[in-house]
Amino acid sequence: MTGSPAFLSESESAALVDDDLAFAAAREAFLATATGSTFPVVIGQSLPHNRFTLKSGAAGDLVGVKIGSFWPGNVDLPRHSSTIVLLDPATGRLRAVVEAAAANAYRTAAADALAVDALARKDSRTLTVIGTGHQALHEVRAVSRVRPIDRVLVVGRRADAARAFAAQVTAATGLPAEPVDARTGVAAADVLVTATTAREALFDANWVTAGTHISAMGADGPGKQELPVALYDRASLFCDIPEQSQAIGEFQHARSLPVALGAVLAGDADGRTSPEDVTVFDSSGFALQDLTLAAALLRRRAASHGDSE
Amino acid sequence: MTGSPAFLSESESAALVDDDLAFAAAREAFLATATGSTFPVVIGQSLPHNRFTLKSGAAGDLVGVKIGSFWPGNVDLPRHSSTIVLLDPATGRLRAVVEAAAANAYRTAAADALAVDALARKDSRTLTVIGTGHQALHEVRAVSRVRPIDRVLVVGRRADAARAFAAQVTAATGLPAEPVDARTGVAAADVLVTATTAREALFDANWVTAGTHISAMGADGPGKQELPVALYDRASLFCDIPEQSQAIGEFQHARSLPVALGAVLAGDADGRTSPEDVTVFDSSGFALQDLTLAAALLRRRAASHGDSE
Repeated sequence: MTGSPAFLSESESAALVDDDLAFAAAREAFLATATGSTFPVVIGQSLPHNRFTLKSGAAGDLVGVKIGSFWPGNVDLPRHSSTIVLLDPATGRLRAVVEAAAANAYRTAAADALAVDALARKDSRTLTVIGTGHQALHEVRAVSRVRPIDRVLVVGRRADAARAFAAQVTAATGLPAEPVDARTGVAAADVLVTATTAREALFDANWVTAGTHISAMGADGPGKQELPVALYDRASLFCDIPEQSQAIGEFQHARSLPVALGAVLAGDADGRTSPEDVTVFDSSGFALQDLTLAAALLRRRAASHGDSE
Repeated sequence: MTGSPAFLSESESAALVDDDLAFAAAREAFLATATGSTFPVVIGQSLPHNRFTLKSGAAGDLVGVKIGSFWPGNVDLPRHSSTIVLLDPATGRLRAVVEAAAANAYRTAAADALAVDALARKDSRTLTVIGTGHQALHEVRAVSRVRPIDRVLVVGRRADAARAFAAQVTAATGLPAEPVDARTGVAAADVLVTATTAREALFDANWVTAGTHISAMGADGPGKQELPVALYDRASLFCDIPEQSQAIGEFQHARSLPVALGAVLAGDADGRTSPEDVTVFDSSGFALQDLTLAAALLRRRAASHGDSE
């Protein structure tokens, strides 16, 4: 590459992103975990109320960093922002800056969809989601693209939020959706997705029935937890980056090393081995997801402009 | 701040930067070390030959990251690059991207000048520099602005490089400059600057005479070393960020905790206490230097455009 760095604004990347692009980028990222590098995550905790994170890495012709921010006091703007910076692998100079707050939600949901596609039973029809926020809606949409989901059960701490979220799900996907209590939702789930900021288990391990796939999307920092530890003794554990998942993800609380989803996708490790298995995927998020997403967005813009990047 | 992120290209920042701007930004950064935050440094070692570093932090209304790269195979381009990303402190969204490869050399030299200004004897006249690279010339220029330097001694591993560098010094500063052996250079120095990528001590501690100030500018990673450990028992030790200097800087090899230069500048700690003191400053480099530099460059561009940022 030569010339000036590319810049993709938030409005541009939000208009370019979709589930297909995000799913393909996620697949590329997970397959790259075998050979690529993920550098240590920086979590800037010392800002009084705000959180600043850096996830960086390199794989193939990609090297760069995602700067994530969570400013909980934002009122008119989203609380999460994301800026992805790519360097030119040939020279180390700035190649591109991609604002990707909206695209980041697609990226995270795409990892979930990829895990569900690799690990959930093919006949999964009931999707239960715990959490009623912005990300949860992305999860429902992405998961329902890879399995024949025909109903969505919603578990929320507040009944009004759960009802409103169920209505959103139906509006966005056409699927019937209803609020249920946690025990009902967990027991009925073929696929169970948690998308919360919880710091303790959201349900009892005994409620989980054989054959369920569980994706924990929320635990991405020390102290966070969505799943009951008792679940791990009867489940097969999968994640994005095993070391990171044990350091800052859900499997902070696990005794055994989880299997990298990338290894399953590459055919180097087993995924689900029977319809009775309980499979658990923990997404702590890793830089290669962001780098492949940014590159895919830049390629799509170049294609839409009829030129090459 | 509102509106689109600002972008300052390499050519723009190279044209805007000068020693005054860099010195003022460095002073601001060192004073901010008392209250600001410096997040853990990321060193991406796993690229086969290239190095990728992230230095991030927050202070006052600045929060962001410097992405540094060292691509030793670059032939037509500088081997070091630097991209500084600032977030909007009110919203966490992208505020500005500043390419700053050329400016980075001013930034590093400005830290040295600040240390010399705070710690070296007022009557320092002989400057010895060990190292003959690009950064070394910046060091000579910056240091000679804060002390009445009237001759420059150059120590290099290769005689031809040392002669060529001495000629460069004279061309750039008008000062007489000559190559000397390490022992002569160290013994004659009022101010001694090391700017190398050495991995072992460059000179013998016994060669250092009373009253000398030493700035070690090169050690910025595990295993790097420029100074003899024996020096530390007879010298007063100063640095930018004590924890970082002990982790990745020169004082990896020191037994006692060095004093933060920011505390000296703020009047909260002693600097040089007599003309006989040997003072040592280690610069490992910290994010607030980059953030204040980027902000100063953006202010200067705004001022030159007659508008406010």
